[in-house]
Amino acid sequence: MQKDENFSEWYDRVLLEAQIVDDRYPVKGFSVYLGWGFSIAKRIVQMLEERLEEEGHQPMQFPVVIPEDAFQKEAEHIAGFAGEVFWITHAGENRLERRLLLRPTSETAIYPLFKIWIRSHADLPLRMHQTCNVYRYETKATRPLYRGREFLWNEAHTAHVDYEGAERQVRKGVEIYRSVYDRLGLSYLLLKRPDFDKFAGAVYSLAFDTWNPDGKVNQIGTVHELGENFARAFDVTYEDEKGVQRHVSTTCYGMGIGRTLAATIAHHGDDHGLVLPPVVAPKQVVIVPIPFKGSEEAVAAYSREIEARLSGAGVRVVLDDDDRLRPGEKFYKWEMFGVPVRIEVGPREVEERSATLVRRDTLERSKAELDGLIDAVRRLFDDIYRSLRERSWRRLEEEIAEADSLDQLRAYMEERRIVKVNWCGDPDCAFKLKDEVAGEVRGTLWERREEPTGPCIVCGDAAKEVAYVSRTY
Amino acid sequence: MQKDENFSEWYDRVLLEAQIVDDRYPVKGFSVYLGWGFSIAKRIVQMLEERLEEEGHQPMQFPVVIPEDAFQKEAEHIAGFAGEVFWITHAGENRLERRLLLRPTSETAIYPLFKIWIRSHADLPLRMHQTCNVYRYETKATRPLYRGREFLWNEAHTAHVDYEGAERQVRKGVEIYRSVYDRLGLSYLLLKRPDFDKFAGAVYSLAFDTWNPDGKVNQIGTVHELGENFARAFDVTYEDEKGVQRHVSTTCYGMGIGRTLAATIAHHGDDHGLVLPPVVAPKQVVIVPIPFKGSEEAVAAYSREIEARLSGAGVRVVLDDDDRLRPGEKFYKWEMFGVPVRIEVGPREVEERSATLVRRDTLERSKAELDGLIDAVRRLFDDIYRSLRERSWRRLEEEIAEADSLDQLRAYMEERRIVKVNWCGDPDCAFKLKDEVAGEVRGTLWERREEPTGPCIVCGDAAKEVAYVSRTY
Repeated sequence: MQKDENFSEWYDRVLLEAQIVDDRYPVKGFSVYLGWGFSIAKRIVQMLEERLEEEGHQPMQFPVVIPEDAFQKEAEHIAGFAGEVFWITHAGENRLERRLLLRPTSETAIYPLFKIWIRSHADLPLRMHQTCNVYRYETKATRPLYRGREFLWNEAHTAHVDYEGAERQVRKGVEIYRSVYDRLGLSYLLLKRPDFDKFAGAVYSLAFDTWNPDGKVNQIGTVHELGENFARAFDVTYEDEKGVQRHVSTTCYGMGIGRTLAATIAHHGDDHGLVLPPVVAPKQVVIVPIPFKGSEEAVAAYSREIEARLSGAGVRVVLDDDDRLRPGEKFYKWEMFGVPVRIEVGPREVEERSATLVRRDTLERSKAELDGLIDAVRRLFDDIYRSLRERSWRRLEEEIAEADSLDQLRAYMEERRIVKVNWCGDPDCAFKLKDEVAGEVRGTLWERREEPTGPCIVCGDAAKEVAYVSRTY
Repeated sequence: MQKDENFSEWYDRVLLEAQIVDDRYPVKGFSVYLGWGFSIAKRIVQMLEERLEEEGHQPMQFPVVIPEDAFQKEAEHIAGFAGEVFWITHAGENRLERRLLLRPTSETAIYPLFKIWIRSHADLPLRMHQTCNVYRYETKATRPLYRGREFLWNEAHTAHVDYEGAERQVRKGVEIYRSVYDRLGLSYLLLKRPDFDKFAGAVYSLAFDTWNPDGKVNQIGTVHELGENFARAFDVTYEDEKGVQRHVSTTCYGMGIGRTLAATIAHHGDDHGLVLPPVVAPKQVVIVPIPFKGSEEAVAAYSREIEARLSGAGVRVVLDDDDRLRPGEKFYKWEMFGVPVRIEVGPREVEERSATLVRRDTLERSKAELDGLIDAVRRLFDDIYRSLRERSWRRLEEEIAEADSLDQLRAYMEERRIVKVNWCGDPDCAFKLKDEVAGEVRGTLWERREEPTGPCIVCGDAAKEVAYVSRTY
């Protein structure tokens, strides 16, 4: 099973064998999260929600249905999403008087309530988040977790007294998302999307793009400055300290939980299956007893002792004492599931009061005394995490190339690289580029300006920025 | 704000003031969970999911949409739900070839996958659960958390080699639910529903009914024995140890998270607002500094010291140092939110290195030394929990009456009691009873048979069972 040679095949097989997602649900573009996959997803959600709540976002839950009239209030927004929403027209035997749509994103569900809740400057800033599924009738090819018609995400929405407040929140949103990706060991480019590709209704949009083994970039999160656009459309105002009515400024940001899970699988996995960062592994350690004739009971008892110690220390541990499988089959199984550390226990370990540890990422073996086992396991967790993170960032660097001509760019696109080009900033040049090569202008670095090194790769005029070009999901 | 005199008014006010749910969403029957309410709901979900996963249920997530043809496979099921489903007919500009409905419950989404997953007896038992919203186009009056068109629940689905396996699982489901209700201090009747009121497609249904201050019983959970009904409709079979193909036997159970939250509010709340069991309180302790002139800094520093100690011990604590509110306003606010313990800190406490504790349920005050504070708080948590639970069970006992005649039953129904009556078991008598009094036959005790004490209250024939009658949500 060769991940880098045939990512698509590898991915489909891992999704089923590691019980991540089942794509055989009888409606196109809708998949089922399986036990192991959803356990990982829940841990990603939990890490994110904790950070959001620490930063003052209240957990809420809005309805999945949005009435047609609310949806149509912000002109750019409706133009951006109208072609891809699911419509509910009937209930029971009745035709509904007013059509309802399944949220493709929740601004138009949330702003009518923001309008009720926000009265005075004392109500601001207002910050909320929700983890939910959103619905988009994708016409592009779907792929589980990367692109579906139902996808799991977390979205945050905030309101502020002024644009500067919203700008500060944009930076906070970036910081929160970065902290989650970092704990997952994921590398990314943080790009400001070109204007023609921003969120429908936003002033500007930032996006976290990660590399993918198949060369298509995976957008795992976005952060949007909305200015007063939605506040004006929904008439959300507050009374300032002088008694003047003003529109709030707002932001929103969304993290694709499915896509973040996909990136975690795709960045860290290897030819044996998943490799999970310990922080999100549903089981962090698997104990495999390897008894020889006559030692079965001693090995079983000692395995349970190790299990109890680890479990008592808060490590998520499973003892695989299934009699129907041989040790080698268990190794195969738990490697596929990406459990970070395997502990092998045989008669020798019993005698020595030791344990043999195998780390999942490198499959290196080491030994530990029972009394130092918990520390040894924790050190391995740290080592694995650091190593995965470094490898992910190194790969991102390797993926990036620079092109001076469309021919060179085309060649790199065929190698499925992420390519830096000089760009004049004209959307027409970006569209021409897309027609000429199988790649899209994804934007420019947000945190650090890169100076162009030559003229626009398309028109030859003076370049204003350095743009990143890639294939996309 | 009088809870028992005017529950409806009390409830509406608490929902908004304690930030539980906002009912002003512009689609009838759809509400918004607010920060405090959803934080409580998430803790209920977490308690339940932990128990389910300990008992071998894998967390999954199925799509919200079900194709019409799958929905129509089980005849009783479709008959039971067809009148109340929402239909998706269009996406973007296109009319869908096949209509999709929003799940009213997920059997018909899940069984097509069970059919794929289950091949042999080694795949059984199969147990999964999911926390999700379900959708029912209710025509009855809606009330937030009690009855809505979108409601949050957790549903579990299991498959077994035979009916006995499913029966054991029914008992396990009951045990799991009971453990959650018990930790919330909720009393309930566990009833076997009469046949005419069972889940559409079930062999039989059990339900947890709780009392409500307005006299309408609140069904907070159900457990269903499905036998082979769904397995036959969806052709879910396995190969047994002898190589014979057999249908699986299945069960399902659902806990209404919103309704369980409503019961928690309704059972324990008082005229000051919410009273939360410590296990689900988003904040378990609030520290209110009460400085006098000159002592501000010492009180603030000591308050922070107390906060750090409690927080270090894993207690969810908030220090309310908002300068805009007076202490009395803070008491009012945090009593409304139902925070179990308030700690008041003034110059005297600073001097004594002590703290004044006020428990939310009785508003009794006590003192503790700083060094014994964590123990004192934990003891208070236990006391509050036990006291709430006892009060809830006592109230249930008080609600129950016994009636020998329809006139007596009618009188008790006007008092909004839960009434035991002798019943012949004939559905017609139950329907007549419903026409005669404003109450419904909810079923018979499941775990302990009660012997009838006279003839059927409706027809006068020999009674077979003792039925519970009440108003319902």
